[in-house]
Amino acid sequence: MHSAKQPSVSARAAKLVDAMVADADALRIAVSTGSHGERIIDLGANVVGGLEAGRRLGEICMGGLGTVAFTQSSGLANWPLGVVVSSNHPVIACLASQYAGWTISDEASGFFALGSGPARALSRVEDLFKELGYVDHSPETALVIEGDKAPPPAVIEKISTGCGINASKLTVLYATTWSLAGTVQIAARVLEVAIHKAHALHFPLENILDGTGTTPIAPPYPDFVKAMGRTNDAIIYGGRIHLFVKGPDSDAKRLAEGLPSNTVSAYGKPFAEIFADVNGDFYKIDPMLFSPAQVIVSNVETGTSFHAGKLAPEIVDASFR
Amino acid sequence: MHSAKQPSVSARAAKLVDAMVADADALRIAVSTGSHGERIIDLGANVVGGLEAGRRLGEICMGGLGTVAFTQSSGLANWPLGVVVSSNHPVIACLASQYAGWTISDEASGFFALGSGPARALSRVEDLFKELGYVDHSPETALVIEGDKAPPPAVIEKISTGCGINASKLTVLYATTWSLAGTVQIAARVLEVAIHKAHALHFPLENILDGTGTTPIAPPYPDFVKAMGRTNDAIIYGGRIHLFVKGPDSDAKRLAEGLPSNTVSAYGKPFAEIFADVNGDFYKIDPMLFSPAQVIVSNVETGTSFHAGKLAPEIVDASFR
Amino acid sequence: MHSAKQPSVSARAAKLVDAMVADADALRIAVSTGSHGERIIDLGANVVGGLEAGRRLGEICMGGLGTVAFTQSSGLANWPLGVVVSSNHPVIACLASQYAGWTISDEASGFFALGSGPARALSRVEDLFKELGYVDHSPETALVIEGDKAPPPAVIEKISTGCGINASKLTVLYATTWSLAGTVQIAARVLEVAIHKAHALHFPLENILDGTGTTPIAPPYPDFVKAMGRTNDAIIYGGRIHLFVKGPDSDAKRLAEGLPSNTVSAYGKPFAEIFADVNGDFYKIDPMLFSPAQVIVSNVETGTSFHAGKLAPEIVDASFR
Repeated sequence: MHSAKQPSVSARAAKLVDAMVADADALRIAVSTGSHGERIIDLGANVVGGLEAGRRLGEICMGGLGTVAFTQSSGLANWPLGVVVSSNHPVIACLASQYAGWTISDEASGFFALGSGPARALSRVEDLFKELGYVDHSPETALVIEGDKAPPPAVIEKISTGCGINASKLTVLYATTWSLAGTVQIAARVLEVAIHKAHALHFPLENILDGTGTTPIAPPYPDFVKAMGRTNDAIIYGGRIHLFVKGPDSDAKRLAEGLPSNTVSAYGKPFAEIFADVNGDFYKIDPMLFSPAQVIVSNVETGTSFHAGKLAPEIVDASFR
Repeated sequence: MHSAKQPSVSARAAKLVDAMVADADALRIAVSTGSHGERIIDLGANVVGGLEAGRRLGEICMGGLGTVAFTQSSGLANWPLGVVVSSNHPVIACLASQYAGWTISDEASGFFALGSGPARALSRVEDLFKELGYVDHSPETALVIEGDKAPPPAVIEKISTGCGINASKLTVLYATTWSLAGTVQIAARVLEVAIHKAHALHFPLENILDGTGTTPIAPPYPDFVKAMGRTNDAIIYGGRIHLFVKGPDSDAKRLAEGLPSNTVSAYGKPFAEIFADVNGDFYKIDPMLFSPAQVIVSNVETGTSFHAGKLAPEIVDASFR
Repeated sequence: MHSAKQPSVSARAAKLVDAMVADADALRIAVSTGSHGERIIDLGANVVGGLEAGRRLGEICMGGLGTVAFTQSSGLANWPLGVVVSSNHPVIACLASQYAGWTISDEASGFFALGSGPARALSRVEDLFKELGYVDHSPETALVIEGDKAPPPAVIEKISTGCGINASKLTVLYATTWSLAGTVQIAARVLEVAIHKAHALHFPLENILDGTGTTPIAPPYPDFVKAMGRTNDAIIYGGRIHLFVKGPDSDAKRLAEGLPSNTVSAYGKPFAEIFADVNGDFYKIDPMLFSPAQVIVSNVETGTSFHAGKLAPEIVDASFR
């Protein structure tokens, strides 16, 4: 098997960020420069932003190795607006870039965020990178934060130092969970949660070749817990993905059967209720819940496809209404 | 709330027009230069044109502030081919540019057309602009006409003078109602008619943040009244939109309930029959009829969504067959 | 009717090929230079490639005169992943370029392939070109092969000589039937098989104005006959198209009624079974079988649409599972 050079998620995202900046007025986003020269882009905190800003943010999160497109046939009769997400490099796009795995916290300022995007692959502070076998080098990068503010100067310094770049070459993009851009960039994670769960299920990542999925877009709700609930429900009860893998059918079958959200006992209630049931202690929720409702896994080495899970439109209705 | 600079619909459309001209042969359209140096593009009168020419024409009508994409899952089982239209600047895209609100007439030549596109925002001859609070400045612009011919020289002079530009910087694009390009550019109005009706219902336009919709594409009919009937029916009985707004829920609810076409007494018959019932007197038709069949209005400030209306596939069938 | 200059399929494809080469690492494809200076691109033989490589390969096959897009609403409940294919120049895109009509064989090396793509319109070795009235001139071109290897040097010489170009200006792209890229580029033929059958039914090609269609993507099967079976079944039992034509309604009606796959007696079984029934003698299969399951033909000169055929999801299931 010919081994291609690994593409740079930071370099690819940089082009998308530059295009976004050039189109800032039309996207209704705000671009500014921070005290260390970092570029700050507000896509949905103190700006209107919009669905399109979120669509592009999703592609930036994936390090330019995937596409996010709108659809009006999400598969949910009452919520037809959705995203279609695809990546022929799903492990790098989703795990090395899109996954919100970089815990960024600063005691002095009280700043806390889970960073996603290509900056993660430069900083490599997460254990996950030991397994991914992916190394990126780039003089510039982008970090995406689901939140209402940019990191303070001291944190910017930590981030840029962690990435080994000059702060002036760092772009931080942020949008709240309940903004239009935010709800779309989270919907764009329908494939990522599947790849992440495949990892948790110990499916060999190098055997995941391609992936695509779709999920409805949750209507924004101006409250963090409610908004988090809806964006999770969109994927857990309304998302579906199709993965193309190689390896033995026994692995593919196990993956398909393990992937859907309905394998978890908490399945069946809107996420905000599940969250209330554990008194808001996120870590008491089975992480395996975070996965699409319905999956197809096709093994290209045997030609067999495994279907599992199903959409639960009535729970999406209960959540979104 | 950070206030972004307003994007220029004329400048954005100009890029799309230039790309269209560069691709004229493949699009099967005809580009020529008129007697005042104006650029004339026939997309569907004496040329074949096509669906793709109409798709691009739709984006030009929206002043480059929206996207028009094809779908094969319009929501109508017998007419799956449709467009998906989106704009995160729906008021400017649809009312300041796309709406066919500029009455262009010339007694001497008998020329009459309803102009749409970004030229309207330069000429500002319509009262509507007093309310929109949108001002555009551009040395070049584009005017779109649903018709079978370009304006004669005297009218070109009026248009360019009205826009405050040199005629050599004006592009006039035209296609008949019954051309392939025409039927697509009219389908691309599914969001515009909703925004226009929201205005008629006195919903505060500044509270409309984002919008998206879909509608089947009416098969061309080589007769103006029949073609107008079908393109109207596509939206009135087969179109659906999703708006994202802010403000009180009472406003959002009233908007959702008022928006669908089924709020009007004439609803229920193909448009050509309604038109015949009033003996072809367009102004006897309730203008509120011109709206999508089905709507969702989501209020981002409360998280509430309001659904109203429904698709009427049997009337679309009666119209398109 | 204004007669536009015919676009060059080779020149348009060349731009797409160059963009593909620039993105080779991300697409997981391998670009190399052959002994005559020809550019060789492996998209799915000794490389992973992917769905996106296949999507672009489909657009290259169409000579840059059509678009191929992914959908997650193919119309098949169990196989939602599909392609949407459109061309406003369907006869040139599909017959002068995309159709795999150039038999390339070499006794010495035993190489055999059916070539598709814009190179065909330069070589013009097929009788079909006498009828198409399409002539292309270009110093560079691309040939697409469904197979597991590039042509040997002697064949490259024949191809470039046949095209009247220097071998260093030839790009050969190849992917197996059972690769991810291969299964997508074959799905992208849903419109082509319809145009080809329209020709076989003696419908006047100049009366076909525009076309669009969709078909599910067959999961790859690592065996030529099985993979060929599935990719055929995707179109024969799961594909649907919408053509826009001119001319008398009697012609349009005859076309619609003749186009669907269910007009053929072998219809009803997965293709691999049909193939086995004739003991693998491809030429005993009625060529009229190769067509979409469902069609709409709209006559723009009369406004009449003709529907025929229907999807057969149960046969697609039997084939894909």
